[in-house]
Amino acid sequence: MAMVALTCVRGCSGVGVIRTALRLPHLRSVSGITVAQIDEEVAKLLELKARLGGDDGKHQFVLKTPKGTRDYNPKQMAIREKVFNTITRCFKRHGAETIDTPVFELKETLTGKYGEDSKLIYDLKDQGGELLSLRYDLTVPFARYLAMNKITNIKRYHIAKVYRRDNPAMTRGRYREFYQCDFDIAGQYDAMIPDAECLKIVHEILSELELGDFRIKVNDRRILDGMFAVCGVPDDKFRTICSTVDKLDKMPWEEVKKEMVNEKGLSEEAADQIGEYVSQHGGMDLAERLLLDPRMAQSKQACAGLSDIKLLFSYLQLFQVTDKVEFDLSLARGLDYYTGVIYEAVLTQAGVSNDAQNGAEESVSVGSVAGGGRYDGLVGMFDPKGRKVPCVGVSIGIERIFSIMEQKAEVSAEKIRTTEVQVLVASAQKNLLEERLRLVTELWNAGVKAEVMYKKNPKLLSQLQLCEETGIPLVAILGEQELKDGVVKLRVVATREEVDISRADLISEIKRRTSKA
Amino acid sequence: MAMVALTCVRGCSGVGVIRTALRLPHLRSVSGITVAQIDEEVAKLLELKARLGGDDGKHQFVLKTPKGTRDYNPKQMAIREKVFNTITRCFKRHGAETIDTPVFELKETLTGKYGEDSKLIYDLKDQGGELLSLRYDLTVPFARYLAMNKITNIKRYHIAKVYRRDNPAMTRGRYREFYQCDFDIAGQYDAMIPDAECLKIVHEILSELELGDFRIKVNDRRILDGMFAVCGVPDDKFRTICSTVDKLDKMPWEEVKKEMVNEKGLSEEAADQIGEYVSQHGGMDLAERLLLDPRMAQSKQACAGLSDIKLLFSYLQLFQVTDKVEFDLSLARGLDYYTGVIYEAVLTQAGVSNDAQNGAEESVSVGSVAGGGRYDGLVGMFDPKGRKVPCVGVSIGIERIFSIMEQKAEVSAEKIRTTEVQVLVASAQKNLLEERLRLVTELWNAGVKAEVMYKKNPKLLSQLQLCEETGIPLVAILGEQELKDGVVKLRVVATREEVDISRADLISEIKRRTSKA
Repeated sequence: MAMVALTCVRGCSGVGVIRTALRLPHLRSVSGITVAQIDEEVAKLLELKARLGGDDGKHQFVLKTPKGTRDYNPKQMAIREKVFNTITRCFKRHGAETIDTPVFELKETLTGKYGEDSKLIYDLKDQGGELLSLRYDLTVPFARYLAMNKITNIKRYHIAKVYRRDNPAMTRGRYREFYQCDFDIAGQYDAMIPDAECLKIVHEILSELELGDFRIKVNDRRILDGMFAVCGVPDDKFRTICSTVDKLDKMPWEEVKKEMVNEKGLSEEAADQIGEYVSQHGGMDLAERLLLDPRMAQSKQACAGLSDIKLLFSYLQLFQVTDKVEFDLSLARGLDYYTGVIYEAVLTQAGVSNDAQNGAEESVSVGSVAGGGRYDGLVGMFDPKGRKVPCVGVSIGIERIFSIMEQKAEVSAEKIRTTEVQVLVASAQKNLLEERLRLVTELWNAGVKAEVMYKKNPKLLSQLQLCEETGIPLVAILGEQELKDGVVKLRVVATREEVDISRADLISEIKRRTSKA
Repeated sequence: MAMVALTCVRGCSGVGVIRTALRLPHLRSVSGITVAQIDEEVAKLLELKARLGGDDGKHQFVLKTPKGTRDYNPKQMAIREKVFNTITRCFKRHGAETIDTPVFELKETLTGKYGEDSKLIYDLKDQGGELLSLRYDLTVPFARYLAMNKITNIKRYHIAKVYRRDNPAMTRGRYREFYQCDFDIAGQYDAMIPDAECLKIVHEILSELELGDFRIKVNDRRILDGMFAVCGVPDDKFRTICSTVDKLDKMPWEEVKKEMVNEKGLSEEAADQIGEYVSQHGGMDLAERLLLDPRMAQSKQACAGLSDIKLLFSYLQLFQVTDKVEFDLSLARGLDYYTGVIYEAVLTQAGVSNDAQNGAEESVSVGSVAGGGRYDGLVGMFDPKGRKVPCVGVSIGIERIFSIMEQKAEVSAEKIRTTEVQVLVASAQKNLLEERLRLVTELWNAGVKAEVMYKKNPKLLSQLQLCEETGIPLVAILGEQELKDGVVKLRVVATREEVDISRADLISEIKRRTSKA
């Protein structure tokens, strides 16, 4: 098989220090190589790298999570569970089933779905076998699932982590590993009814989470493409100009225009025409007005999109959500796979940023917290015969919402409990471990959430302190006297009130007292 | 910087076909290389591989999930949710908090923790930046979390997926991506109290899931090590002999002995002595008997382990779980990090295997469904000063349990619902879409789980069929007459009984009827 010769062209001076002399044989002629041979060479090189001691020998073990990721501590988990419950409840209220897919997919499954963003995909190492990548979103795996199982018809939600090798900005809730909460409707239905339901869902969730005011921007890829066409953008530049338009939420128009003209080679005239359109936003009235625009009228596509926006708004009125929804011609969204309506929800309340603590960077708002749209072509990309399944969906970006909820929790006086323990089984005297274990077993077997301290002879004070710290509302105290009398002293932690309860009544008494809370 | 020369030593004949001639310059002298240079070369080689078209050109897109993984469809998710709820309820009943960690860790975090199993770790591709691996279990990330946050004291559960490049046997519930449900107690406590609680938890969960009869085998690493010592196993062979003993649940003693003697180079005499011990199992009485064994008495370690097993059984009696727990000297468990008590739960009911359907291979029982033990040294491996945090925990292997539950569900007549929809808003006549959307909005806003069909004019029959198929119990039917009268016809799907309800009373009536169910 092939072998490899590694040499230093410029004498190997500079930062990289050579630790070991290479012992790989040096060979004279280049002729060709197979993939299997490349694999072998790569393995050798990486082994060599390992022998060199990692990244140029500056090795030291660092106790951390990988860049752009984080642990969730119990308090954060309690907040996360609350958010997930709200979201799941909404998805279920709208009749969605749920599915799950593996965290990685065949690399090919993800290829060609994300446009410029493909470079952000995490690949797994080739350890022999299939080439794999971590999922980048939940939409492509969903489409793969539909095609693979020949499903033409489903309403499903999926809450799971996705992975992007993006530049993390963790204080603003931008991570490399983050949750998406997706709701999608697949199937051939009458226009805009499922699309409108997705917006209703965003409205319900953002309202229920009480994150402050928000807006949902709506547009349609067909309107964008039609607009590009009538403004004189060449066909092959639609996508790249679309990406530039997408930056309008971060850059002023002047800079966006500069990028279009200088970097993307668009004529100044075309850019100015686009500029006129993308500054417009409104409601159903704007769609009606644009339908009368003589230039837009030249594009069948644009007109189809505009009519659908009109229809969408009529359903949104019935769903009582037009107060937050806005037709915004500057909304583009980056992903390649959208084919119709697109939308994005942003929080508009400035108060949520923690600029005081973290400096100027933090005064930026958390921005987009949900987005989605219609993607009628994606499933067909997976089907061997190209059969299409129309889909529309929405993804709630939960990390930014967590950031806000965490900040709110920190400010709030309310203490977050991280366990649900109802009663601590305690003793005031020594040598009662066995009695405590016997009682806690009774409670567990009856479904009561209960704890004992894992000490033979804990002090009563430290047992009571544990309750204070973790919010356990009741203490069941055992002592020689109580055992003799066949009772347990039940103490209410908040009021310090104590009452003797017979062993026979204890469980029902605990249940009675904790169900009230 | 360095460059690479790739050559074919044996003329590149054979299976690998050369697609492109190499254009990388050929260089004459080998002198040395830095890690940065290796990275560069690897990147070049892999790009070349990509250009060659993947695995030696035998490319065709396959619509599948990666080897050893699977999707969960809505029915499977319904079962999974039920199992998770049972497990979570038990963990919470025992006062555990929950945490989450990233799906990948720094590669170094996992290095040296899994012994021979390390080869099964999934690595991520080096795309620049940190070297990462997918987590292999939840225990090592937990220990890393404790050390990183200087936590000396926590009771936590963690339910998440882990990854092993193992040989999958999916019909038996062995996957490469699978869930673990871990419960661990970290902290310096009195001996065997937390250890016993872990066994109590396994007992509760396996009982509540109704998986048939089960046994929990218990042993102690110190007893194993002590036994090896007194049987004359050399110190440096403890680990490897331990791995061989671990195979006793899959192989007869004769074969295990052969491996010890022929492969691991143990004396026949030592092997026979081990054979005598590992055939023994019992309860507290066995521990007492072995404490009197003159050979065992030579090992302080073994005696400490045996005394703790005695103590453990006394607590297990109080916890009322000794009916299922067995002290078994043949239990070894593969992982390196255990330092004390170890345990493993197996389902003993043969009836759960589906041998009739899938041939002989399937007559093997599903085997181990939970395992764990004490690992007092693991956290110290992460702490810069080596400070130890004693830990004990248990991991429920949920995939095998899913397999059984799925089989049970298939056999059972009970239909599993995959949504929770309470009412379908339907119409018997045309042109009532807007009225349906208005009514479903009312229901959603009141928290009722409701659906409409996404058609302008669906047939009543297809609306009723949808209810039958998905188990929706109620239909709210709108018609011209109902609208005129200010009522809704509420139909009970099961009985076909219909009754007119005033719009004002509809929500409370739906809630009343569905809360009864």
